[in-house]
Amino acid sequence: MADLSGWTIGVIGLGHMGVPMARNLARAGAAVHVASRSPEPVALLAGEGMTAHKVARTLADAVGTVIVMVTDTDAVDRVLHGSDGVIAGLSQGKLVIDMSTTKVRETRAWAAEVEAAGCAWLDAPVSGGQVGAEQATLAVLAGGRDESFARALPLFETLGSNVTHIGGIGAGQVAKAANQVIVGVTLAAVAEALTLAAKAGVDPARVRTALRSGFAESRVLELHGQRMIERNFAPGGHATVQLKDLNQVLELADQLGIALPTIAANRELWQKLIDMGHGKLDQSGIIRAVEDE
Amino acid sequence: MADLSGWTIGVIGLGHMGVPMARNLARAGAAVHVASRSPEPVALLAGEGMTAHKVARTLADAVGTVIVMVTDTDAVDRVLHGSDGVIAGLSQGKLVIDMSTTKVRETRAWAAEVEAAGCAWLDAPVSGGQVGAEQATLAVLAGGRDESFARALPLFETLGSNVTHIGGIGAGQVAKAANQVIVGVTLAAVAEALTLAAKAGVDPARVRTALRSGFAESRVLELHGQRMIERNFAPGGHATVQLKDLNQVLELADQLGIALPTIAANRELWQKLIDMGHGKLDQSGIIRAVEDE
Repeated sequence: MADLSGWTIGVIGLGHMGVPMARNLARAGAAVHVASRSPEPVALLAGEGMTAHKVARTLADAVGTVIVMVTDTDAVDRVLHGSDGVIAGLSQGKLVIDMSTTKVRETRAWAAEVEAAGCAWLDAPVSGGQVGAEQATLAVLAGGRDESFARALPLFETLGSNVTHIGGIGAGQVAKAANQVIVGVTLAAVAEALTLAAKAGVDPARVRTALRSGFAESRVLELHGQRMIERNFAPGGHATVQLKDLNQVLELADQLGIALPTIAANRELWQKLIDMGHGKLDQSGIIRAVEDE
Repeated sequence: MADLSGWTIGVIGLGHMGVPMARNLARAGAAVHVASRSPEPVALLAGEGMTAHKVARTLADAVGTVIVMVTDTDAVDRVLHGSDGVIAGLSQGKLVIDMSTTKVRETRAWAAEVEAAGCAWLDAPVSGGQVGAEQATLAVLAGGRDESFARALPLFETLGSNVTHIGGIGAGQVAKAANQVIVGVTLAAVAEALTLAAKAGVDPARVRTALRSGFAESRVLELHGQRMIERNFAPGGHATVQLKDLNQVLELADQLGIALPTIAANRELWQKLIDMGHGKLDQSGIIRAVEDE
């Protein structure tokens, strides 16, 4: 773990990701400031010695580095803008890092605003979920200027175990979109394969084990495949988040003028799962949509 | 490698899989008999000391174990039936193993015919391609009775490194179908993800490397993803074979009354690749269909 003593870091958004991330930063020696829509986690972390803020503006004013970790593009928009937003609290030389999973076009616009305020921007969405946040084993996919990335690296290495500078501003969100394409589709592939086996009267557990030695092997077959067989759909990562991310992917593809037929079909399956009332299931619950039961 | 001295084994079908498999059986000590539609590989292996047959009947008559390794369901049908077919050459106590990738319903019918002749049946399709056949590292997915599987195990262990008895007759083909679902769809997922990154102006090689540490990791991202980035579409496994296998999967799903929406969309993408004239490309060439170029 890097040594963050001397750093003042604000964390905005204290959900199941933001809380453990704030704790890991504090453990590394940073003075951590926090703000969130819901008062409970703010009070919790204040009780652990962090500095609580009612609004993003005062937090941004108080720290050198602002981390935003909220649910979606609209939420980042609200956090950044307005008279109590992050941008209103910025002054020359601060660093703003959006670690939420958000849209690429909006990310590039936010970066321009932050740079206009004399500050640096990184988009740095993560993969690895709550467990990765707690164990500081997140994969961090960073986009932004070289000097900004170099500045943030000790912070990223405190939060994750695999940190990659993908490219310029927005590249982190593009990489996360690519990640969600692969994860979302592979989940459906494993679900359809195991369902096919079960309906054909063959033990899906034995099929899964046999297939793991060949080209079908994946982290999804290993982890989520096991969950599907155990019918363990406790999250983990919510199906609703996967659908949100895939909607963003398809919007990006549309802006780029490309068709992604597999992900488009896959999106429908996630929508079906949520329409069935299973949005709170783990992503491995996609097998319920395949089974249609 | 198991010791197959004392075994007489016939191999019918001497394509890029059958030839190295026959050689591995001979190397393990078996007396190997061969037959194939095209005369060249028969002559080649006869020159290496194997016994050549003009028709499947005389081969089946001469050996204790018959392996069929041909391109598809129709080809197995032709090899088994007719006055010069395998079944015409069977007598009590032989073992017939279909290692081709074929349809489940037809497999069960063939097994009934072979058992009616007093012989044993195994369906044992493989995964791992020509390299796996040459290096004897194939994954073998076997369906059939326990005693038949136990009898064939030394043979399977000569041909492959991961041998699984999935279940009863037909279960091997069901497992292979599940494998092809996962592989076909994961290939498309990786192709769409890397194309999205490239079109968004981000280096797909860097995205691939970053994603390998998370939930998106798979053998396909590792091996075929690298091929996509290097634009190395020399086979490997042909796209036409993938389409044939997916057509069989969808026919099986239809017989079972289940919908597999992701694989149905994926089938269209493979069809598109072949319609573009790229059927001879490696499976990683699916990215050409996504790029639509």
